[in-house]
Amino acid sequence: MSVSAVAADRSVRAPLPVLGRDVTVPLVTGGEVAYAALDYAASAPALQRVWDDVAAYAPYYGSVHRGAGHLSQLSTELFEDARRTVAAFLDCRAADQVVFTRSTTDSLNLLAAALPEGCEVFVFETEHHAALLPWRGARVTCLDAPAGPRQAVDTLERALADRRPHGPALVCVTGASNVTGELWPVRELAAAAHAHGARIVLDAAQLAPHRPVSVRDLDVDWVAFSGHKLYAPFGSGVLAGRADWLREAGPYLAGGGASRAVTRRADGGVDVEWQDGVARHEAGSPNVIGAHAVASACKALTEAGLDALAAREEHLIRTVREGLADVPGVRFLSLFGDDAPRVGVLSFVVEGWDSSHLAAALSAEYGIGVRDGLFCAHPLVRALLGDDPRGRGGCGASGTPGERPRGAVRVSFGAGTPDEHVERFVRAVGELVRDGAKWNYRTVDGRCVPDTSGRA
Amino acid sequence: MSVSAVAADRSVRAPLPVLGRDVTVPLVTGGEVAYAALDYAASAPALQRVWDDVAAYAPYYGSVHRGAGHLSQLSTELFEDARRTVAAFLDCRAADQVVFTRSTTDSLNLLAAALPEGCEVFVFETEHHAALLPWRGARVTCLDAPAGPRQAVDTLERALADRRPHGPALVCVTGASNVTGELWPVRELAAAAHAHGARIVLDAAQLAPHRPVSVRDLDVDWVAFSGHKLYAPFGSGVLAGRADWLREAGPYLAGGGASRAVTRRADGGVDVEWQDGVARHEAGSPNVIGAHAVASACKALTEAGLDALAAREEHLIRTVREGLADVPGVRFLSLFGDDAPRVGVLSFVVEGWDSSHLAAALSAEYGIGVRDGLFCAHPLVRALLGDDPRGRGGCGASGTPGERPRGAVRVSFGAGTPDEHVERFVRAVGELVRDGAKWNYRTVDGRCVPDTSGRA
Repeated sequence: MSVSAVAADRSVRAPLPVLGRDVTVPLVTGGEVAYAALDYAASAPALQRVWDDVAAYAPYYGSVHRGAGHLSQLSTELFEDARRTVAAFLDCRAADQVVFTRSTTDSLNLLAAALPEGCEVFVFETEHHAALLPWRGARVTCLDAPAGPRQAVDTLERALADRRPHGPALVCVTGASNVTGELWPVRELAAAAHAHGARIVLDAAQLAPHRPVSVRDLDVDWVAFSGHKLYAPFGSGVLAGRADWLREAGPYLAGGGASRAVTRRADGGVDVEWQDGVARHEAGSPNVIGAHAVASACKALTEAGLDALAAREEHLIRTVREGLADVPGVRFLSLFGDDAPRVGVLSFVVEGWDSSHLAAALSAEYGIGVRDGLFCAHPLVRALLGDDPRGRGGCGASGTPGERPRGAVRVSFGAGTPDEHVERFVRAVGELVRDGAKWNYRTVDGRCVPDTSGRA
Repeated sequence: MSVSAVAADRSVRAPLPVLGRDVTVPLVTGGEVAYAALDYAASAPALQRVWDDVAAYAPYYGSVHRGAGHLSQLSTELFEDARRTVAAFLDCRAADQVVFTRSTTDSLNLLAAALPEGCEVFVFETEHHAALLPWRGARVTCLDAPAGPRQAVDTLERALADRRPHGPALVCVTGASNVTGELWPVRELAAAAHAHGARIVLDAAQLAPHRPVSVRDLDVDWVAFSGHKLYAPFGSGVLAGRADWLREAGPYLAGGGASRAVTRRADGGVDVEWQDGVARHEAGSPNVIGAHAVASACKALTEAGLDALAAREEHLIRTVREGLADVPGVRFLSLFGDDAPRVGVLSFVVEGWDSSHLAAALSAEYGIGVRDGLFCAHPLVRALLGDDPRGRGGCGASGTPGERPRGAVRVSFGAGTPDEHVERFVRAVGELVRDGAKWNYRTVDGRCVPDTSGRA
C-alpha cells in the first residue's frame, strides 16, 4: 500500500473535528438527532482548531498597525503573519500581494474596481453571481456554458481571439462549480488567457476548501476565496495575486489606513496621498480575528493534507452517487458528465418532487441541512434544469410528476463531515422518495415548512 | 443620593469584564505587568459577555438566508434578530434599515456609493479620514474647524445657505472626536441640515461605545459605527437609517444575495434584478458571528446602562486631566476648550518629548498601550499641533525643547478599563517626564522601539 493510499485510507475514517459536531436538533416526528450539516458549499462549520486558535488569541486582541502597545504590536505581527500563511497556502509568487477582504464576493468586487481603463472581462454564464456580476463599468463577454473542459478552453480561446483591440482583458473562472462541484480546467484556461494577452482570476471559493491551490502551478494572476467556506467563518476573505493593477487603482474604500497623508489645500479642498501595497485596499481597522482564523484554517488543512482530505471526500461523493443511483427519478445536475472530477458538491432533482419540499423534509424528518433553489447561479441551474422559471416555487405548488423542477437540491460536505451524515442523507432521500414524507408541509413566506396539520 | 448618582458611584467601582483583563506583558526593565489597554479609540477589547455569546453560538453556526437546515434557520433568525437589536440600541425609526457592514469606514463608503445624482457633501476638516474621504464623485465642501459647538452650527448653517441650486445634500459629522474626545452638537447640526433641506449622517464610531445614541432624538438620517470599537471585534459594522437613498442606489457589492434574479438575454448579455431592502447592499454570505457579536455588545451596554458607564468614564477622564495637570509641559489637544464635554479619548503633547518616544516608553517600561501619531485625522491634528509636518518623526529625531511636535499621544478607555490602568498611566507620564525614560530607544522602520544598548 502506497503512502498516499495509507493517508487516504486513514483519512476516510477521520473527519477533522469541527464545531457543532455534537449539536442535536429536534425532529418534527419526535426526538432529537445529531445535526448533519450538508451545506458546506454555502458555509462550512469552523474547524475546532480554528476556534481554538481564535479563542487563544482573543484575549490578546489589540488595535493593529498604529498602536504603540504590546498587544497592538503582537496583533500587527499576527495579522501580517496571517498574510504570509495565506500566501504559502496558495503557493503565491514572491511579488504577489494578499489582501484581506470580507469574502470572495468582496474580493472579486475589489478586483472589478481595480480593472485598468478599457479592460474587457470574459466570464462563463455558468459562474456564481459573485463572479458573474461584479464587472460593472467593464465590457463583459458572457461565454456560453461548455459541455466539457476542452470545450471551455476552446470557447475562451475563440472569444479572446475575436477581441479587438488588444487592450487589457481579464478572465474570471471558478475552480469548482458551486452547483455541480465539477472541476474546471483552470491551468488550461490560464494558458489560453495568457496566450491572448489576458489575465485570469480564479474564484476558488469552492476549490480551496477541497483541493490544493497553487497560484504558481495554475499560473493564475489572482485567486479569491472566502474564510467562511474554508472552515473559518469569521468575516474574512482573500484576494491574492499580482500587485500592479491594485497599485494603479484608486483605493477600494476611502478612509484611514489607506491614506498615507491628508492635507487641506489653500483653496479649501483636501489632498490625499494614498498608500501603496495592501494597505491601499484595506481601509479601516482590519478584521484581525477573521484573518487569523483564515490562516489557522490554511495551516490545519495543509497539515491534514489536502490530497488526503480529497481522497476521503471522493469516498463520500461515491457514497452519494452510488446510494442515489437506485432511487427512482433522481437526476444529478452536470455540465461535464456525471463522472467528471468534482469536489463534494452535488445537485440533483427528483422527478415528482419540488426541491424545497425535499429539502424541508430532509431537515424536519432527518435533521439534515442541505440547500435548495438556484444557488446564486441562476443561468447555470436553469440551463441544467431545462427550464427558465423566475422563482423558487413552494412545496405545495409542485410535486406533480412531469412538471419541470423550479430548483434543485444541493448536498455538499467537506473535511468535517462524518460518513454517517452522508449515509443518513442517502437513506433519507431513498425513504422519502419511495415512501413519501411522513409529515405535511406548507409554504410560508416562500419557504417550505412542516405544517401544523401533522403527519401525512 | 439620587438614583443616577448611586448608579454612577457603583459603576465607578465596576468596569465591565473584558477579554485580556488578566493578560500580562513583559517590561523592558524586567518582570511582567498586567497589560493596560488604553487605545480603546482605535479598537476595544471584546466584552467577556460578547465572547461568551459568540462562543455559545459558534457550534450552531450555519449558512444564512438560503439554507433549509435547522442551523441555517437558527442562524438566519439570529442574524435578523441582531438587526433588530441594533435598531433598538440606536432607537431607530420604524422604517429605518440596519445594514451590516464591516466597519464605520465601510458604512460611510456604502453611503457615499448611494448618494443621489448631484448630491453635495458637507464635512468638517476635523473629521477622521473615514468620514472625510469617502465622498468620491460628489462635490465636497470641506468646512473649517470650529472653535466651539455654536461655531460649528453657524459654520454649517452658512455653508448650507450658500449652496445653489438646492439639490440633494448630505452632512457628515462625528459624534465624538477620535482625537480630542469632544462631543459635537449633533442634534443642532441635524436641525441645521434639515432646515436647509440637507440630510445628515452621524459617524458614531467614537460615540456609540460611550454614550446613548438615539436616531430619533438626534434626528439624524443615518448613523454608522464599528463593532471593533464597541467591544465586539469580529469584523462587523453598521449603517442604520433611511431606506430611500439605499433603495435607489445600485448594490454596494455585486453578487449573490444582492441579486434576486439573473437571466441570460438573447443577445448574450445578462439581466439582473437586484434585491430591495438590506439584502441589496449585503452581497455575499453575511458575517453572522460579527453581527451577533455587535448585537451582544448592544445588549450588554444597554443592560449596564450607558449613562452609568459614562459617569464612570467621567471619573477616569478627571483622573487623567487632574493627574497630568501638574506634569510640566503637558498640553492637551482641544478644539472646544479643555473643559468641553468629551468621551474617554484624550490627546496631548509634552514639551521636549517626541510622542512616539513617550508612547514607546509607556509600553516598554509600564505595559501601557496608547497610540501616537496623527490618528487618521491629519488636518485636525496638524492644526491642533500648530504645525504641518508630512510625517510622524522618530524617537531619535525629536525630543529637543522648543521643537514643534510631529504627532500627539492619545490615551483612550471605556467600559472595561479599571481605575488602576488610568492611574498607572498618569503616574507613568509623570515619572517619564520628570525623571526621563529608564531605557534607550531607537527608530526602526518608522517605529520607536527599545534599543539593545539598554538602560538610559
